[in-house]
Amino acid sequence: MDLDLAIRGGTIVTSSGRYKADVGIRGGRIVAIADTLTAPDEIDATDRLVMPGGIEAHCHVAQESAAGLMTADDYRTGSISAAFGGNSTFIPFAAQHRGMSVAETLELYHERGKDSVLDYAFHLIVTNPDQQAVEHDLPEAFRQGITSLKVFLTYERMMVADSTFLDVLALAKSAGGLTMVHAENNGMIDWMSRRLVAAGHTEPRYHAISHPALAEAEAINRAISLSKLVDAPLLIVHVSTREGAELVARAQAEGAKVFAETCPQYLFLTRDDLDLPGMEGAKFMCSPPPRDAETQEVLWQHLARGTFTVFSSDHAPYRHDESGKLANGPEATFKQIANGMPGLAARLPLLFSGVTSGRITLEQFVALSSTNAARLYGMYPQKGEIAVGSDADIAIWDPAETREVRLEDQHDAMDYTPYEGMRLTGWPVAVLSRGERIIEDGACVAEPKRGRFVTRGPSDYFGRPGITVPEMDPARNFGAMVKP
Amino acid sequence: MDLDLAIRGGTIVTSSGRYKADVGIRGGRIVAIADTLTAPDEIDATDRLVMPGGIEAHCHVAQESAAGLMTADDYRTGSISAAFGGNSTFIPFAAQHRGMSVAETLELYHERGKDSVLDYAFHLIVTNPDQQAVEHDLPEAFRQGITSLKVFLTYERMMVADSTFLDVLALAKSAGGLTMVHAENNGMIDWMSRRLVAAGHTEPRYHAISHPALAEAEAINRAISLSKLVDAPLLIVHVSTREGAELVARAQAEGAKVFAETCPQYLFLTRDDLDLPGMEGAKFMCSPPPRDAETQEVLWQHLARGTFTVFSSDHAPYRHDESGKLANGPEATFKQIANGMPGLAARLPLLFSGVTSGRITLEQFVALSSTNAARLYGMYPQKGEIAVGSDADIAIWDPAETREVRLEDQHDAMDYTPYEGMRLTGWPVAVLSRGERIIEDGACVAEPKRGRFVTRGPSDYFGRPGITVPEMDPARNFGAMVKP
Amino acid sequence: MDLDLAIRGGTIVTSSGRYKADVGIRGGRIVAIADTLTAPDEIDATDRLVMPGGIEAHCHVAQESAAGLMTADDYRTGSISAAFGGNSTFIPFAAQHRGMSVAETLELYHERGKDSVLDYAFHLIVTNPDQQAVEHDLPEAFRQGITSLKVFLTYERMMVADSTFLDVLALAKSAGGLTMVHAENNGMIDWMSRRLVAAGHTEPRYHAISHPALAEAEAINRAISLSKLVDAPLLIVHVSTREGAELVARAQAEGAKVFAETCPQYLFLTRDDLDLPGMEGAKFMCSPPPRDAETQEVLWQHLARGTFTVFSSDHAPYRHDESGKLANGPEATFKQIANGMPGLAARLPLLFSGVTSGRITLEQFVALSSTNAARLYGMYPQKGEIAVGSDADIAIWDPAETREVRLEDQHDAMDYTPYEGMRLTGWPVAVLSRGERIIEDGACVAEPKRGRFVTRGPSDYFGRPGITVPEMDPARNFGAMVKP
Amino acid sequence: MDLDLAIRGGTIVTSSGRYKADVGIRGGRIVAIADTLTAPDEIDATDRLVMPGGIEAHCHVAQESAAGLMTADDYRTGSISAAFGGNSTFIPFAAQHRGMSVAETLELYHERGKDSVLDYAFHLIVTNPDQQAVEHDLPEAFRQGITSLKVFLTYERMMVADSTFLDVLALAKSAGGLTMVHAENNGMIDWMSRRLVAAGHTEPRYHAISHPALAEAEAINRAISLSKLVDAPLLIVHVSTREGAELVARAQAEGAKVFAETCPQYLFLTRDDLDLPGMEGAKFMCSPPPRDAETQEVLWQHLARGTFTVFSSDHAPYRHDESGKLANGPEATFKQIANGMPGLAARLPLLFSGVTSGRITLEQFVALSSTNAARLYGMYPQKGEIAVGSDADIAIWDPAETREVRLEDQHDAMDYTPYEGMRLTGWPVAVLSRGERIIEDGACVAEPKRGRFVTRGPSDYFGRPGITVPEMDPARNFGAMVKP
Repeated sequence: MDLDLAIRGGTIVTSSGRYKADVGIRGGRIVAIADTLTAPDEIDATDRLVMPGGIEAHCHVAQESAAGLMTADDYRTGSISAAFGGNSTFIPFAAQHRGMSVAETLELYHERGKDSVLDYAFHLIVTNPDQQAVEHDLPEAFRQGITSLKVFLTYERMMVADSTFLDVLALAKSAGGLTMVHAENNGMIDWMSRRLVAAGHTEPRYHAISHPALAEAEAINRAISLSKLVDAPLLIVHVSTREGAELVARAQAEGAKVFAETCPQYLFLTRDDLDLPGMEGAKFMCSPPPRDAETQEVLWQHLARGTFTVFSSDHAPYRHDESGKLANGPEATFKQIANGMPGLAARLPLLFSGVTSGRITLEQFVALSSTNAARLYGMYPQKGEIAVGSDADIAIWDPAETREVRLEDQHDAMDYTPYEGMRLTGWPVAVLSRGERIIEDGACVAEPKRGRFVTRGPSDYFGRPGITVPEMDPARNFGAMVKP
Repeated sequence: MDLDLAIRGGTIVTSSGRYKADVGIRGGRIVAIADTLTAPDEIDATDRLVMPGGIEAHCHVAQESAAGLMTADDYRTGSISAAFGGNSTFIPFAAQHRGMSVAETLELYHERGKDSVLDYAFHLIVTNPDQQAVEHDLPEAFRQGITSLKVFLTYERMMVADSTFLDVLALAKSAGGLTMVHAENNGMIDWMSRRLVAAGHTEPRYHAISHPALAEAEAINRAISLSKLVDAPLLIVHVSTREGAELVARAQAEGAKVFAETCPQYLFLTRDDLDLPGMEGAKFMCSPPPRDAETQEVLWQHLARGTFTVFSSDHAPYRHDESGKLANGPEATFKQIANGMPGLAARLPLLFSGVTSGRITLEQFVALSSTNAARLYGMYPQKGEIAVGSDADIAIWDPAETREVRLEDQHDAMDYTPYEGMRLTGWPVAVLSRGERIIEDGACVAEPKRGRFVTRGPSDYFGRPGITVPEMDPARNFGAMVKP
Repeated sequence: MDLDLAIRGGTIVTSSGRYKADVGIRGGRIVAIADTLTAPDEIDATDRLVMPGGIEAHCHVAQESAAGLMTADDYRTGSISAAFGGNSTFIPFAAQHRGMSVAETLELYHERGKDSVLDYAFHLIVTNPDQQAVEHDLPEAFRQGITSLKVFLTYERMMVADSTFLDVLALAKSAGGLTMVHAENNGMIDWMSRRLVAAGHTEPRYHAISHPALAEAEAINRAISLSKLVDAPLLIVHVSTREGAELVARAQAEGAKVFAETCPQYLFLTRDDLDLPGMEGAKFMCSPPPRDAETQEVLWQHLARGTFTVFSSDHAPYRHDESGKLANGPEATFKQIANGMPGLAARLPLLFSGVTSGRITLEQFVALSSTNAARLYGMYPQKGEIAVGSDADIAIWDPAETREVRLEDQHDAMDYTPYEGMRLTGWPVAVLSRGERIIEDGACVAEPKRGRFVTRGPSDYFGRPGITVPEMDPARNFGAMVKP
Repeated sequence: MDLDLAIRGGTIVTSSGRYKADVGIRGGRIVAIADTLTAPDEIDATDRLVMPGGIEAHCHVAQESAAGLMTADDYRTGSISAAFGGNSTFIPFAAQHRGMSVAETLELYHERGKDSVLDYAFHLIVTNPDQQAVEHDLPEAFRQGITSLKVFLTYERMMVADSTFLDVLALAKSAGGLTMVHAENNGMIDWMSRRLVAAGHTEPRYHAISHPALAEAEAINRAISLSKLVDAPLLIVHVSTREGAELVARAQAEGAKVFAETCPQYLFLTRDDLDLPGMEGAKFMCSPPPRDAETQEVLWQHLARGTFTVFSSDHAPYRHDESGKLANGPEATFKQIANGMPGLAARLPLLFSGVTSGRITLEQFVALSSTNAARLYGMYPQKGEIAVGSDADIAIWDPAETREVRLEDQHDAMDYTPYEGMRLTGWPVAVLSRGERIIEDGACVAEPKRGRFVTRGPSDYFGRPGITVPEMDPARNFGAMVKP
């Protein structure tokens, strides 16, 4: 058997099981899995786990915020940090800002993406789906393999009206794509923020108070309702509350094509972290905000039960200096401080701690870290799987290694990590991308700009059957109309 | 015992029970209930039910629509029609239109109300609660006894943003008042309407299709969420769907101060009524639209179970001619036809049919037709009760009389009734207002303009305990802020 | 107006409202309510509440336990204690024990009841509904006005099999009666008790642990399921858990004729009370046991929301001496100690504290203390109402009086009260039964043995519509069969 | 690479994905999966699906009913029929009958099992878990690899009391095993059956009426409650109702280790099939009975959503002659007719029709037909997987073949199949067991008695976290006690 490389002696873990076998690679792809394989180049994986490389499906790199602030990371630093974190693919956003067309947006981000050392794709953030976008640009984006869109229900400069959201859902559905949504009720947040600021409550901690759980739950319910109207698939990003997770679980139980994501900040941080004196709390500001210990527990349970299909970092890197969090000075109100925190390198070790503690199984770790994202975002089985024919995107983990999270190990452009000092067991020791070594012996050994744009196909909806909305009974001549 | 008038030999029915006794009246009020009473003036109520006069709590008279169309009924014809229907009080809307201040609105409606033969009050429709309104006009309206406000979540020219809705809820709560809401998702309706009209589906029947149940359910959930945020009481008007009723019931079970209303059109009509050829279907257009037979059944059950606190006509009288439904000609699309239908005189006989058929008890009829509205809208026990000290507002019913609903018996300004020809058992035979005969022997015998404006007090929330929203924990210094 | 007695100057409170008026009484009944009444005998009720006398609907007097232990109270002491507690009627149990026929049981209790100073009725406890009982004795009991039956799902010597329970439900339904059930899963309690005792955990506190919330929830679900099968009304007595209350609320929301009761021990005591050293904890043993502070809160909320139709003492008086709790000596295991505690005199002042604290309204107090029981148990409007024609069974309360619960004020045959020392505001100051003074100026002034047996009619099911069980579709020729 | 056999050119389908590759087998196990493999013996699987052989996890062969009736199939005919149906392993029951010890039961079934041509295991039916069983025989059975027990909540001669069920649950849990339960409320069925038979309704169709959906829902709720009390895993077999499936889904959403199974009869038959004239309906009698078309739809949806972990035939073969269904003559009542129907060979083609129609994915088919059973019943990854190291138990399917279900293709000992004439697309064309051909070219080519008993390990609970029962708080010294 003619191989370029063999990974020998490890335990292969996939989303469905684990077994000892060797992996044979040729031409960047897995071509054999067998009890014994030999090759000119071999990696010894004895006592190691051989898993699909992670897919980071929610991160912001080389992206301006609505307020015009550029993230600290670009595709080079972002992809390197992700690789250190056990990932072999990532999917940042291509963000349309008011005034830009979709086509211009994509052109810009294709240019930015060239710096990546990992394979990458884009989710397209849509803020203004006008006629040109709906009739031409978005279908063209789908044809180019950009098969996921994101909309916002909050942030004045980003949010879309419900009827626009329906346009996007219907369009994405017709193309086999997936709509993602940041679901928080803008009115509630606005109303509370105004009162808080007016009362002089401007410190970072009031950011958490101004984003009540009700705001997330309301918006999730609305988003699900809109997706049901047109029976279109939907992913709720960064779910942070019990109420939100339960709404998703209920929709899934009813057969709706509703998926959800949660993030490490909701499992490892709480609103108390924002209570640090002065501007220290700003490091822990993100939207939605971290909640409390009881919610962490509930979200872990929903991870274990399958409510969440993906687990992402929502890496949004703004440094704790005047280039980021402190851009508006030390007296800025919580409304004037950039939201977000880093997590590209920390996401998977944090999630793996759930395996160590028995909260989730190894197989669930693989599903949540990689396989599910591949399926949901139309890259399966090219990515996210250890099987013959798949890209040799592989992370090798030492499940027994214990060390602390440290800023210098993040390898991003940030000046802090919110997880500093957390002691975790289970770390990636090597990462391969298309059969090439990226991370080895604690160093990044990748060629610069070697990453390729991944042309994605339709989303795999995990076999969820459609739902039936009685009003759309074709006998009443309406069903056909919904389809764009 | 010195009485002006005695009602003798009847069976008194209240919201809590029934018993045979005479009612003694002096100075417009009930002063005695006893086994035998005599008076210079007596009404023989043998074999009759002696009940609190109905309170019609949702009707549009002498009101312009957002599109500028005036209702066919004014306070004179409206109050007379209501009286024929067994009512002794009614509460039309004082509707602020864009450009009018709240104070101007009230001044205008106080003038219009003078024509009434029944006692009356106003719900204030708020479309633009600016600083002047919030700080001055609305508190002043509360002081004048106008203790209920209504907002819309649909209709482009009427709808309020979520944060404005929160302002209204908080304001009404602080004054002991009640916020009413028309809850339908405007985006869904708009999106579907656009597609329907674009596809040439313009007949009245498409009105029903463009208002899916999901649109009501989504908006009810949102309205309840907003009311929970500030723990403010809320009434959802004209609930028309199973999903909506269940959301209300669930919120009540959680202890939220959420109340709901349904209307005869949702119990007696279906969307099939809109399928009549040409413009005939326009007679049955209202928002939300009638649904289907199964939903009728579900809503009856929620009436019996107490989910609905009030049952109102939503009388919105637009004639089926060029002054009303046909104002935009016979080729108008469903978006150009005035919404609404009459029901002032038909509401209570229609509801009483539920007593006859065993769906609700007589006591529930009294609660739904009168007592609950008096309590919810701050008029109890002056109105809505047969007890010593209450106004002698009394309806005397013959539970055995059977006849058909007919236009000529409605005594309103309309040219049709949607209930034409329905055969009902149980009709009002006499109505008293403050001890004065209004309806007797099939005729209106009231003095013109005798009605009085009722200065209302705070709403009685039926003893519902408040809910606790964890984010509003005073220990986090926020609770105080919510209170305006 | 010819009256025997007038109660003057008070505020009348009924289940639906409150107003100032005088009450006129003649021949033991209320004959007039008016703004001013005079009579040869007058009671000054200025600053007092004039309410229907309480109806104690769940108490054990002159009754042997399954183990043969006689209650400390008989009909004389029990009725006097109840009267001191603001009651004018009570409904103890007539308990069939294995070996006795229903007819013998009733004969025995009719004899025992003669000692009562209050009017009384019986619920019939059925343990062995054999053919003679079903075909003859139970129908005869219904004809004699004993229209409620009770069955047990726990206690080896009392419990009925599910199919027997169905026989009782179907029989009661056919007679317009009501089936009551003690719902706890016997297997769970037995399994846990065996393990606890085997492990040497025999103190009173283990009684609470051996009755988990799951045991109540399971049995309530089963009882509701059985009642649904035959669409027969059902009352769950002494609901003590959140889960149980929620099951009842859900069944009610579905339209099932399911009612529920809770008791003061679940609102004012917790399992911690059983933790007292030695045998002191035995004073607080009852089944189901008190739970915890959070559950108390939940149950108060369900009282306010209407989940509970009645609020009873479950007075089960076993003294804390060798005649009662200590009958098996100081070394007895918790399985050998009599269950139950007193509460006849304390129930209503305890409930009234909920009015004082704003948890429930005065009107809800009246409904829960009296009116609802009258309706549910077929005595309305003879009992439980302040209206012309009703028995003059009246309790006059001073809502402002504050004092502590004390054993010497209970006037029962007990040597302790579990509520000793609780400071409450709102106490009854006078009680009338059929117009006769029973309690006045802190003393019982009733004639001995003056109480009368109340012949009850069918239960009023509060207008709940029936539910439809698809399998019972008459089109499949089965519906008829279910009816006995 | 040294192989015995290669399966070439097919598409491998596992529970998590599909890809084209060859499978290499040596020594009865899979040793390689690669893009190209050669071997002395090769099977051409071009255009075929290469899937794990089915595992039939619920079937009755060589088993006497409680009434003493022997099944038509033994291990020889049963295993052959299963193999024709695409299975490579099956798990019949070893049924303890009253009077037999567990040890005797196992000895008997080990003898019977020797006739099998497929590998097999036993679920142990426990009817009398006495002290000897609990302390010795059942632990011994677990040690021998019999790690699943089944109890009944119905059938007078089989059913266990709730406290016995708790003993079994606790015991199985302590051994890492799984308790299965037939959940129907015996009292409801008994009560309805008595009334039906007494009324002369004795035909087979009344069997369905005597087993209402409520009976299943109640018993499922009870079984789940009992499993929660001791936090023990539980599988509800043959769930047939919407209510039952929803209870399971809710328990899973709460994190309980509750699993469920459904069967082809609930997806392909309805109660109308029992309406055939005379005794024809008896062919379709099973417990629980088939329901209706709407329920079929709901159960398909729960299959797709993952509520059901396994899909089994519940093969219970009683011929439609005097050896089986007609053993008590043509006048027997429905209570005297053996319950059950065959399905070993039809189960998987019936389930595959859901793939063809788009109801479930191919991957779900594999999970439901094989992989999940392997994991749940402690045989994974030896059985149920296509991976290096697993037994070469492989079914090769032609997804395009269309033919009708026919009795002669069942190859069992029956004289009918309830699915006769159903036209299905997708059929197994070859089956391998440990690398040996069993079915090939439409014939069984297996050596007689080649099957081996599978020693099973602990159940894999799919990573479900445990639930916390507050009463079991170790701080209250109880937790430890629950553990046997």
